[in-house]
Amino acid sequence: MLIIDALQYVNWTRPLFEEAKAGGVSAIHVTIAYWENTRDTLENIGDWRQRFSDHGDIIMPVRSGADILQAQSEGKIGIIFGFQNCSPIEDDLRMVETLHQQGVRIMQLTYNNQTLLATGCYETGDSGVTRFGREVIKEMNRVGMVIDMSHSAEHSTLQAIELSSRPIAITHANPLRWHKALRNKSDDVLRALGESGGMLGFSMYPFHLNNGPDCTLDDFCGMIIDTAELMGIDRIGIGSDLCQNWGYETLEWMRSGKWTFKPDYGEGSAKNADWPRQPDWFSSSKDFGNIASGLKDKGMAQGDIEKVMGLNWLNFFTAGFGPEG
Amino acid sequence: MLIIDALQYVNWTRPLFEEAKAGGVSAIHVTIAYWENTRDTLENIGDWRQRFSDHGDIIMPVRSGADILQAQSEGKIGIIFGFQNCSPIEDDLRMVETLHQQGVRIMQLTYNNQTLLATGCYETGDSGVTRFGREVIKEMNRVGMVIDMSHSAEHSTLQAIELSSRPIAITHANPLRWHKALRNKSDDVLRALGESGGMLGFSMYPFHLNNGPDCTLDDFCGMIIDTAELMGIDRIGIGSDLCQNWGYETLEWMRSGKWTFKPDYGEGSAKNADWPRQPDWFSSSKDFGNIASGLKDKGMAQGDIEKVMGLNWLNFFTAGFGPEG
Repeated sequence: MLIIDALQYVNWTRPLFEEAKAGGVSAIHVTIAYWENTRDTLENIGDWRQRFSDHGDIIMPVRSGADILQAQSEGKIGIIFGFQNCSPIEDDLRMVETLHQQGVRIMQLTYNNQTLLATGCYETGDSGVTRFGREVIKEMNRVGMVIDMSHSAEHSTLQAIELSSRPIAITHANPLRWHKALRNKSDDVLRALGESGGMLGFSMYPFHLNNGPDCTLDDFCGMIIDTAELMGIDRIGIGSDLCQNWGYETLEWMRSGKWTFKPDYGEGSAKNADWPRQPDWFSSSKDFGNIASGLKDKGMAQGDIEKVMGLNWLNFFTAGFGPEG
Repeated sequence: MLIIDALQYVNWTRPLFEEAKAGGVSAIHVTIAYWENTRDTLENIGDWRQRFSDHGDIIMPVRSGADILQAQSEGKIGIIFGFQNCSPIEDDLRMVETLHQQGVRIMQLTYNNQTLLATGCYETGDSGVTRFGREVIKEMNRVGMVIDMSHSAEHSTLQAIELSSRPIAITHANPLRWHKALRNKSDDVLRALGESGGMLGFSMYPFHLNNGPDCTLDDFCGMIIDTAELMGIDRIGIGSDLCQNWGYETLEWMRSGKWTFKPDYGEGSAKNADWPRQPDWFSSSKDFGNIASGLKDKGMAQGDIEKVMGLNWLNFFTAGFGPEG
């Protein structure tokens, strides 16, 4: 079965690549940037070239849907480059194509906070897609870079869906009606996303789960089945938001960047500041099989399980990573 | 009479400094950045160090109200460093103090477009002051860098007035009720600005003037008198927005930065794209006397004329350029 994970943020080591391979994953959308500017982003991409050189027997770069199928046939993990923020393009529209040439295929317009392009989900106001944001959407559409609104505010997300000539993604989030969190998405957003041919990736990050780390597999899979009814079975996949092998200082940086002197606890709190515990049925990339089993136990048809586990993302990325045509 | 101009953007040459000196100006808030990042801004500040070295007989840096008085007593032009955008701090709160140490005393939170801090006056939505923006306002308050909302949207401006513990400025704009333009300010904004101890600088940039370049001195001075009634005679000054000695490509860059491929005409249009013609009564820094005469002809008392021409800005900058106390 083809397995694609539409979002991870991992401090990669060879054992972690091996673990993902053992889990049967054929493609992972990896996070290249949270707050990095253009120069720092190019450095992170340089690090990936080194990883491809060091671990070319188990990983390979993905620039197209065909690359994902090649990774699957060779038993490798295809690596999809993406940004969780628009900081890598700074204020320069031309950087979209520049970074697409570097292999980047997915970019979030915001990461929690307001950006030059749109409003993040942690802001109180939401001005929607900005003047610069409209130009960037057009350019991402043109070159074939998928717009990701996982960390964006509601009005901005609805506007991005409307403004984009191509379907967009929310690579990692869950329905708000299942678990109330600033990062989860309303029915309005999910419906508009589904109707426009977009994709939602279900997150296993504990702050996005009903009952947090104690969320049951049964509950999670039930939520997937409900969302299939809302959005359509072709519009959903996995975007685990798996974070592995990072210290607390990385979490602090993800949350606070350089925009505040005092710590911002994001989805956590002063008393619960550290990385959350993963649910026992999904502790690493070796556990994707549990989700497939869980969906089977809930009565989902095998063909639909395969769609959710990877085929939907394959179709979406195959269309989305090519130039507009 | 002390004359202070709270905004100019000039491609400076020695003859232009001499012209300003002949016009009796003791301090000018000069524009150090529109779209520049931190590194490019430091380069622009380096250029100013060279100018102070080359023309130290007629210009001097201003870091405090006392420096303005010194410039006046020595018959020099005091140069106040300011940014028309927050691009120089990029995404880093620490850059506020860094750039204050470089002599920067005024910063706009936005330049027409949405920024990381607030919404610009050319956007359709207006999310107000952002999470990062709130931190930057606190930091500007702390170090003594004046918040300038000249190019900001209405809701963002009202929020900045409310959030800032110190009075803010709109260094260059006119009342919307006098001339309808995206850059001019509503009565609500001007009233809140006045009540909070802030300052408005009247602009002579033709797009901000009633009848544009054909605006009469009488009309302009009448507008000043009306605004004194609305805001109080102590809350107004001059911020000419004088732009001199630039080619069209500079105007194009000011308007379009790197955020759009197609030209944005800003306050102009495709048919009227170039720099506007100045009104005949204010073509350069030698003409400040005309405004003082115009106010006298409209019956303004000499003491009030002196406030408008410079004393109000002196008081405001004396308080605003020092650390929070």
